[in-house]
Parts: sequence; structure tokens; C-alpha cells
Amino acid sequence: MIHFECDYLEGCHEKIMNAFVATNMEQTCGYGEDEICAKAKKLILAQCKREGAEVHFLVGGTQTNMTVIASILKSYQGVLSAVTGHINVHETGAIESTGHKVLALPSATGKLSAAQIKEAMETHRKDPAHEHVVQPGMVYISNPTENGTIYKKNELQELHEVCASYELPLFLDGARLGYALTAKENDMTLEDIAAFCDVFYIGGTKVGAMFGEAVVITNEKYQKDFRYSIKQKGGMFAKGRMLGLQFETLFTEDLYLTIAGEAIRKAEVICEILQEKGCQFLYPPQSNQLFPLLPKRWLKQLQETFVFEPWGIEKDECSAVRICTSALTSQDNFEALTGALKALV
Amino acid sequence: MIHFECDYLEGCHEKIMNAFVATNMEQTCGYGEDEICAKAKKLILAQCKREGAEVHFLVGGTQTNMTVIASILKSYQGVLSAVTGHINVHETGAIESTGHKVLALPSATGKLSAAQIKEAMETHRKDPAHEHVVQPGMVYISNPTENGTIYKKNELQELHEVCASYELPLFLDGARLGYALTAKENDMTLEDIAAFCDVFYIGGTKVGAMFGEAVVITNEKYQKDFRYSIKQKGGMFAKGRMLGLQFETLFTEDLYLTIAGEAIRKAEVICEILQEKGCQFLYPPQSNQLFPLLPKRWLKQLQETFVFEPWGIEKDECSAVRICTSALTSQDNFEALTGALKALV
Amino acid sequence: MIHFECDYLEGCHEKIMNAFVATNMEQTCGYGEDEICAKAKKLILAQCKREGAEVHFLVGGTQTNMTVIASILKSYQGVLSAVTGHINVHETGAIESTGHKVLALPSATGKLSAAQIKEAMETHRKDPAHEHVVQPGMVYISNPTENGTIYKKNELQELHEVCASYELPLFLDGARLGYALTAKENDMTLEDIAAFCDVFYIGGTKVGAMFGEAVVITNEKYQKDFRYSIKQKGGMFAKGRMLGLQFETLFTEDLYLTIAGEAIRKAEVICEILQEKGCQFLYPPQSNQLFPLLPKRWLKQLQETFVFEPWGIEKDECSAVRICTSALTSQDNFEALTGALKALV
Amino acid sequence: MIHFECDYLEGCHEKIMNAFVATNMEQTCGYGEDEICAKAKKLILAQCKREGAEVHFLVGGTQTNMTVIASILKSYQGVLSAVTGHINVHETGAIESTGHKVLALPSATGKLSAAQIKEAMETHRKDPAHEHVVQPGMVYISNPTENGTIYKKNELQELHEVCASYELPLFLDGARLGYALTAKENDMTLEDIAAFCDVFYIGGTKVGAMFGEAVVITNEKYQKDFRYSIKQKGGMFAKGRMLGLQFETLFTEDLYLTIAGEAIRKAEVICEILQEKGCQFLYPPQSNQLFPLLPKRWLKQLQETFVFEPWGIEKDECSAVRICTSALTSQDNFEALTGALKALV
Repeated sequence: MIHFECDYLEGCHEKIMNAFVATNMEQTCGYGEDEICAKAKKLILAQCKREGAEVHFLVGGTQTNMTVIASILKSYQGVLSAVTGHINVHETGAIESTGHKVLALPSATGKLSAAQIKEAMETHRKDPAHEHVVQPGMVYISNPTENGTIYKKNELQELHEVCASYELPLFLDGARLGYALTAKENDMTLEDIAAFCDVFYIGGTKVGAMFGEAVVITNEKYQKDFRYSIKQKGGMFAKGRMLGLQFETLFTEDLYLTIAGEAIRKAEVICEILQEKGCQFLYPPQSNQLFPLLPKRWLKQLQETFVFEPWGIEKDECSAVRICTSALTSQDNFEALTGALKALV
Repeated sequence: MIHFECDYLEGCHEKIMNAFVATNMEQTCGYGEDEICAKAKKLILAQCKREGAEVHFLVGGTQTNMTVIASILKSYQGVLSAVTGHINVHETGAIESTGHKVLALPSATGKLSAAQIKEAMETHRKDPAHEHVVQPGMVYISNPTENGTIYKKNELQELHEVCASYELPLFLDGARLGYALTAKENDMTLEDIAAFCDVFYIGGTKVGAMFGEAVVITNEKYQKDFRYSIKQKGGMFAKGRMLGLQFETLFTEDLYLTIAGEAIRKAEVICEILQEKGCQFLYPPQSNQLFPLLPKRWLKQLQETFVFEPWGIEKDECSAVRICTSALTSQDNFEALTGALKALV
Repeated sequence: MIHFECDYLEGCHEKIMNAFVATNMEQTCGYGEDEICAKAKKLILAQCKREGAEVHFLVGGTQTNMTVIASILKSYQGVLSAVTGHINVHETGAIESTGHKVLALPSATGKLSAAQIKEAMETHRKDPAHEHVVQPGMVYISNPTENGTIYKKNELQELHEVCASYELPLFLDGARLGYALTAKENDMTLEDIAAFCDVFYIGGTKVGAMFGEAVVITNEKYQKDFRYSIKQKGGMFAKGRMLGLQFETLFTEDLYLTIAGEAIRKAEVICEILQEKGCQFLYPPQSNQLFPLLPKRWLKQLQETFVFEPWGIEKDECSAVRICTSALTSQDNFEALTGALKALV
Repeated sequence: MIHFECDYLEGCHEKIMNAFVATNMEQTCGYGEDEICAKAKKLILAQCKREGAEVHFLVGGTQTNMTVIASILKSYQGVLSAVTGHINVHETGAIESTGHKVLALPSATGKLSAAQIKEAMETHRKDPAHEHVVQPGMVYISNPTENGTIYKKNELQELHEVCASYELPLFLDGARLGYALTAKENDMTLEDIAAFCDVFYIGGTKVGAMFGEAVVITNEKYQKDFRYSIKQKGGMFAKGRMLGLQFETLFTEDLYLTIAGEAIRKAEVICEILQEKGCQFLYPPQSNQLFPLLPKRWLKQLQETFVFEPWGIEKDECSAVRICTSALTSQDNFEALTGALKALV
């Protein structure tokens, strides 16, 4: 079987594996205080162009979300999120386990708008019983979203502005950030992300790394003692240099955006074939995750060779599935799928 | 410089690296539900010989401790631990962050005795105000301890019996378990550990793996829904097979105990040289961590080439340091150190 | 001004105050282990007719909700609640502060149905990613609800049955229970409540007491060590007999239901006058809380003398308000309001 | 039997009961936002003489401790406390349930010294692994202590200074504060307490009230949104004026210190009789709690009429007990005890 159900199927990019092999028996101190991590941080910050920003490496997304959110919120505050946000639906209550409510706002495409934040804040402020209600204390978004949609620069800028006006930190989950920054419709750079967010992370696990997320804290207010939080939440990686090594590799010669872009190009081709065949999509197909409604007959045929993720929605004899490409999708697998799609009748 | 300050300085055993390389572009499903993890679990269970036991793979020790403890304790219970226990001193309050008190008992060598557990339980039971006091709900030990000492079979059996008599689960932190099971004075097998503990883990990070701890839950009472806890505490590794692959390698042809044993033999040689030179040790030198009191003059000389961990204790013109060997300590480094130690005058 | 905005405006029933005065200088032990509490518990259990049930006294509702819920849920579980449930909207995240997500289900009238519970459970069970989602671990309802509506016997029985089939504990918040049990449309007794719920409480604060809620745990599975939870959550009242004294008084000569019934009769009269005048209600007016839509002209006029709670909803030149009667509403205040309402033109 | 085992045996001071009776049917808004609470706060602040200080009323001590501490600490911080501190031993882990470790320091008399705080802070700062250790984030003391001892002005001033130098908030648990401020050896006023502490509370429950603790937050840094914390931790009292009414009464015509002083005078007489008879005390007898070592023969005789709290320590044919007076100890009971003590031979 050939798998397209998610974007964490293979190991890691060849250059990362080479780096592992090449440095394996070197000795470095633990917990990310080594020279390799230091170098990786410098490379990332060079692209962010934010004076005073800090970088930390964590292993995975849920861990990163809970550590960042718990480190920022006051005990009686909650985090605003799209109802479809990963923290609201797919983290087994990790945020609540740190004592905080996820304040879910409706969203058809996975995105939040500045107007929604403003309304939530004004509703809270004007509520005479506001002290009996969880106080919104930060905003969580992801780019791309869980639905594969992306933010445009003006949307993120507006979110930034409304958040700033309420002194609400804006936190962007970039578990798949590479796929947003290389999407056809994207009009942002890493520098823009860094300018508009108080904290964000650059996902490695789903973009070529074996594991790892690089958290960038641009707002100095949230930097203090962050390593205590990492340790307390179980996220401090003993052989920390392995995280640094992966990000050093990804941020050398633009590897990160290059391989993310390759995945995006593959997704675009798949998308075009499906559109030409008249397929509808649940959400605008903008990044490496596609949510087409496939005629059941086609789906049955494809499932003899390919694995997609069932998305639990049926409509007019069609079933929705998730199809993902990734930085590690092989050319062979890609061609097998596009060939099969083209052959559908 | 040549480093001996801890046992997580290098990457991973060559055979593990080879396995990474060989399988890198294979596709497997995520979150540890793949065939490789299944195989690794089988290999581990074959050595544990506990019908009905379950294995889970997590990334690191603090994460494992907090996940296991939070999954077992009731909200008003605490965990009994030696005052020197890792959970009590070196996890930035990870256990407390899950809502539970660490109930610290005195310990000169890092070990707890069955008598101490019994006394703690009886004191609690007889306290007329016991409802105002945290209820002891489980016992945490580590083997080897933070002080490099190990449990003898009769000691662990007694702990098991006293715990069973109070229906207290016994949890053994085996972050360095290989070094206990291959120590000269050790009289236990993995089968014994599995027979006496309700939950324990086999440490990979410090015994040849790049990362990874294999949690074995022998008591069926604590198995239910453990994967929910892993996910909630941020410990579910996306590319889960990487954990399985490391433990499959470590538990093939007895690699785990073989390489742990090599580290122990190195530690023994270092220990013998120091003893011959008249050095005292803070704790009985029983495993891969040695805590000698080195004359300051010698220490200064050695520190030109070698890094040890300062242990903050001074006595009679000597300073205590921690010297560790590990499954990845190279023969060259080992010989450099033994040579230098022998040359001290 | 005469107040009708809530049901906790006055002190306590005269008989309770007399009991305070009469016993004030008696000496009893603390923390609810006194004879008076024991007697009050017996009186309550006599009406519940549940062999083996246990009673505990706490001070207030939010405290009770968080203590009960945290004592029952496993760390990775959440509590199903109507989206309008008190725990979801008006407790500043008290439930989340104990680590648990409130799993909100839609509700137009504040009630949950057995079918909703069944659907939520089946959705969770069938989700292939269920381990990444908070597991529903109990059901929270209130009777009357926050919207003043009440459960009928068959509805509660169905909830009981569906909960039992999933081994889900059913917890009923009875902060205003007296007003449900004396409502015109009610067809249940305290015995029914006790038969259908695993845990519930009998609200004192809003039904004649100065403070106090009597938690009844009918399911023995949830009784163990509940006093540890009370203490840990800050709810153990030092001079505990004051809680017992109030419930002893309320459960002597049927005072609790008598005075709740008087409040209900007053609410019914107010409701009838408003209905005769053509007022619509936001929710079916079934208990002591009424949510009429008052023409703004009338509201302005009434607000010269009376205080109601604004309910933030406007419709056709009308504003919704909450009007409450209580066990302590004086006949004078009641007559002043009914007189004023009748005089509206 | 006549009880002296604790200081919460009776109901409340007659004047408080009179105030309850006199105002019972008045209507006020809930949650402490009424005029009576406002007046009580003014009376308290007038004695504290701290511009900008804020007062909040909570029901009990454990609730107050957990609410204050959780509102101040960052998620990775712990609270320094004497090992004998109430939060460390008698709150069933309430502090840990909010996610924070109690960092226990040794204490023979229940007090902490400025030198201990300084040492703990320096040890933490100098620890190269400090990020792996819970960061001390505030200091908790009580006056009088659990052992009945009191702080002298210079001691509290030194604590204040060392705390200020580390930006550590100093929190004083004054559950029995009246008994410290009226002790023979006391040299402080409420004004001093307010000057030296960032947060403290004035205990009502054990000093004449039926229930209630008045939290004074003198440092503006810790005032923001404190009511959210009260609500979240289950401590917001619905009929809030009952708290205000008690403190209004206690702070009118100096009732609080007057009745505390009467209890102290009774304790002094008891103490003198015991000392004349040659009794030793476990801790210096300085406030309303006495810990004499009574010959077992005498104890047996006294226990026919009187109840003391066994203190679990035996020495030379003597057993230690706790004997408490309180603001509500009747003259009759006091004379019965002193008579019996004098008659011992």
C-alpha cells in the first residue's frame, strides 16, 4: 500500500540522517545547551529578523502547545481558539490538564478573524458577571489550519493588531508552517510571521524532520524562564543537540522551504487532477492537506493501492477523505497516485 | 575535552543508527501503532515473562514519570519517594504540576526500604487528622538510584510485598535500568523486576538509544486507557516507529544488556583505580555513576583534559564529582581516563 | 428598591437563625464530624431511601461542582454538560482548573437528553482517533436548569439508563433542587432523584439557608475518601456543625419543600400575571426563575421600584430579564411586585 | 465534657450573632459586592494604614491559602514554607492540587528566618541545574505558627527585606492573627503586618467569627483580577454580606483585638499554673495554643472532664497535648480548667 493519509509517515530528510550519522559519536552537553543548538537558533533568527527573539526546541506539537500556553496564561485565564483547533479537539485535553479552558469560537475553515477576537473580548468586558467567566488570556491559531487553509498577510496583521490592542498574546501553531509559507496563495515570509506573532513555532516533525518543533518567542514578556516550563511539562530532551542538528540542517541552504515547496507542488498537481475531474473539496485546497469529496466508486478503487484518511463526512454519493503530501513524499509514490487519479473514469 | 559528566553525551548505538538509515523511507502509521513497535513490544515482553503485561514507548524520563504517576494516583493522593528521588528534586515540579504531592522520605543512599513504606502507611492510617493529610497512593523508586546504588532482589521483593499489602502500586524508574541489571552486585533479571513492580520502565536514552523509555505495565489495573494519558501529557510521539525501532534493536541479540555491561565494566575499572589510590566515595560505587571524593590537586589536573560533574560537596581537601560511563563511552575515552587516573601521584 | 434579580438576597430562614442562636455557645468538634451533622444526614437519607448512600455538607455550588467532578473523573476524562451549564459558563473555569475539559453539548432549554449522551458516547467510541480526544467520563445536569426548566421523571430515568449502560456516573446539580421538586409540572420526589443519580446535591444557599449544599453520593463507587477531596479543594468547613444545623432545620417537618413550594407559588402568580398581559418567555416558566420578555416601557417603569437581572436579549421592543422568587421572598415584596405588574398598562 | 482541643468549638461572638439577626431579612446583592462588605473593608484598611491595599473575604483558611498562592505563583514556581507549615502538612495537598510544590524548610518552632530564605534562594541561583528544580516563587509563613509561636517585629522586618531583595512576595497566614497581636511578647500592630507583608489575612473563624478570613493584598502587583481566582477556586460566597457583617462587627470598637486578648490572658493563666507545677512545653508558650508535656497520671485524671488534643509525642512519663483557648472560651469553662489544674498533685 502507498500512504497519503498524513504527513508523518516516513523518517526524515536524507540530509538530516546524514547529519545524525556524521556527528553521532561526538560528545555534547545535554538539554539543548550545546553549540549545535546555538547555531541552529542563530540560523532561524536570521530569517525571523526579530531583535531579541528567543528560540527553543521541543519534540512534538501537543507538548509545545501545552507548554507555551501554560507558560503564558494566568491561572484564571483561557485561550481563544477555533472550535476546530488542534488544542480543542485532538490533544486529549492537554490544555485543560494544565488548568485552562479552551474558549472555542466557531469557524468554517479553521481560521479565526480579528472581528471574532474583538467580539469575544467586548462580550467578556461588558458582562456584569465577567468575574464568573473564564477571562480570555491569549489567542491560538494555526497556519495552515487543521483544514489545510492558510492565513493571508492582511488577516494575520489584523489579528496582530486586535490582539495588541487588548494586550492579548497571539500564538501561532506552525506544526506545518513550511506548507503555509510555500502555498500558492501565501503572501507572507517567516519575517512576517515573526512580526505579527508573540510566540509561534516552526514545525519540523511534519516538514522533513524525524521530530522537533522550533518555538520562537518574539515578545520578550513571554521569554523569562521558559526553560523551566519546558522541563516541568516533560519536554526537555536529554540529547538536545539532536533537535538542533535537525533544525540546523533544515535552515541551511533554505532546505526547509525548498522541501515544503516540493510537497506543495505535489499537492497542487493532485488538486488540479481532482478539480479537472469535477471533485468538490470540503475546504479551500490551499496547502499540503486536501479534503476532496471522492465518489465512493473511485474511492473503493483507489483504496486497493492507496491509503487516505476517512474524514467522516458523506455527501451525494461521495465520501470526504484527507490526502496529504509531505516533504518526504517520494516521487514514485506521487507519480503512482497522480497516475491512478488520472486513470479514474 | 573528554566528557564523563553524564551518560547522555553521544548520539546512539551504531546498530540503532543503522536501523534508522535502513528503514528511513518506509511508510508506517503514526503514534506507535505500527508493526515495528509491535515487534519491539513482543521482544521486551518475552524477557519480562509477565502474561498480560503491556508496553508503551515514551521519549524521556520526566515525561514518563509524570505520565505514569498522574495516570495512577487519585486526585488527593501523593507519591512516596526518596527525598533524593528524581521526581522530588530534578523535574521542576512536574509531578506537582499534575496536582500531586511528592511525599519525600529520608534516604542516605537513594534507596527506600520496605520498613519505611510500612511506617509511612501506618503513620497515615493512625493519624486522627488523616483526611487533612495527603494520602500516600503509590511508591516511586529508581534502580539504579540517583546515587548510583542498586536494589538487591530481597529488598525489591520486600518492597513489593509491603506495597501489595497496602494495595500501593510500586513504580520503578529504570532510566538506567541496564546499568543495574549488569552491576557486579546485582542478583536480579528483567523478569524479577517485572514480577515485583506494578509499573516500571526500561531506559533507552541513557543506555544506547538516541531517546526513548519503554514503560512496562504489569498490573492490569493500571493499563486501561494509558494511551489517553500519554497523549494528554504531550508524550505521544508522531513518528512512533522510531521508538519501536530503537527498542527492537536493543532487544535483539541481547544488545541492551551487553552494552550496559560494557559500561559497567568500564566503571568498575575506574572505580578500582580510584580505590587503589585511596579515594573515598560518597555512596557505594555500584553502577555506572561514581561519586568519588577527589583531592583538589588531582581534580585540577584532571580537569585540563576531562569533564566531570561537580557534586557540591567538599571534605578534607577533596571535592566530590560524578563520573559516568555509558553504553556509548568509547574505548579511547575510557583508556584516556584510566591512563590519567593511574598517572596521578 | 425591592430586589428580584436572584434568589440569594436575604440571610436565612427564621428557624435556621433561631437554631444558630439557640446552640451558639455549645461546643462541638470541627469539620462536620459532630452529632448535629450526623442527625442532619440521617434526616436527608430518610427521604432519599437509598441504602448505603452518603451525605456530605459543603458551603457553595461551584465548590461542590468542582469537588465532586474532580473526585470522580480520571485525569484524561471530561464531563458532558449542556453548553449553558453552570460549570461551562459561570465558574471561571473551576472544572478546568482541576484538569478536566467540560464537553459542552447544545441545549435550547438548559436540559440534556438521553439521546444526546448516547450520541456523544457513540461518536467517541467510533472515532479512530479517540485516544487523541478527551474521553467523556461523567454527565452533569442541573434541576432546575440555569434557564429555570425542570426534568420530568421519564427524562431523568432515560438519562439514568443511558448513563448506566456506558458506566457513566450521572451527577445532578441541585443548587435549586427544592424549586424543581415543588414545581407544578414536577412528577418526582427526592427518592426518585436519589434513585436515578449517582451523585446529586440539595441546595441550601438558594432555598432558605444562609449557605450550604448537601451532597448525596448514592453510588458506593464514588464514596471512598470523598472527605479527602473536600479538604483538598478547600471546602472543609471548620465549624462544620453550622452546615448540619441548617440542614437539620430544613429537613425537620418538611421545611425545605414547604418554603420552596411557597417560592414556586409566588413565581406562578407572577408568571400568570405576565402571561395574562401577553408577555412571552425565553424559556418555559417552570420554577422560581422566570425569563419574561418585558416591553421596554414597562421595564423602565418597574425599574423605579424593582431590580431584575438583565438577560442581554432584546426582541420586538422587549428586553428579557430574570425575575426570581426564593424561599425567603417576603410576602410584602411579593405583593408589591404583583400589584405593580397588575397595574401595568 | 469541656473542650480545649482546638479554637473552633463554639459558634460566634454574641455581637456577630446579633448582627446576623438584626439584618437577616435585608436584601443585598451577592458575591461580596454589597455595602456591608464595603464598610468592613474600610474599617480593616483604616487599621492597616496602607494606601492602595485591597481586602477580600473568603470562608476558610485552606481555601484562602490555595487561592492566594495559586494567584501569585507562576506555573513552574513553588512556595517556601516551614516544614511544619499548614500548607505542607494539613491541607491534603491543596497547594499541589493547584500545580505547585511546597518547598519545605526545616523549623523547630514553626518559624522561618530571613537567613533561611536567603540560603534557599542562593542555593537555587547557584545550582547549575536550577532549571531542573522548582523555582522558589514566594514565601509562606503564619503568625502565630502551628506551634503557637509568634514572630517579633525585627524578624518579620528581616523577612520582608530579604524577600524584597529577591522580589519574592511574602504571604502571612493569619488564621489566628488576633492571638499573635495580643500575645505578651508581641511588639507588632496590624499596621506593621501590613507594612511587611505583600499579602496576609486576618483570621475570623478562630477569633470570634462563625467563619471568614479577610485577605489584605498590600502589594498592588498581586491585586489584579483576584476575584477571578476566588471564583475559580470555589471560594466566592453567594451571600457575601455575611462575611462583611462579621468583619464589620469584629472591627468595630476594637472587638477583634479585645476578644483575642481575652483568650490570650486565659492561655497565660493556664500556662503559669502548668509552669508552676513544673511542666515542660514542646514549644515556647506564646499565644493561645499551648503544648505542655503532662504527666500521664495527671492527663488521665483531667481527661475525665476535659478534652485536649493528643500531640503524638511522649517523653519521660509525660504526653504532649495541645490546649487552646479562643475568643469564645467561656469564663465557666476557663475556671473549671484552671481549678482542675491547680488541684493536681
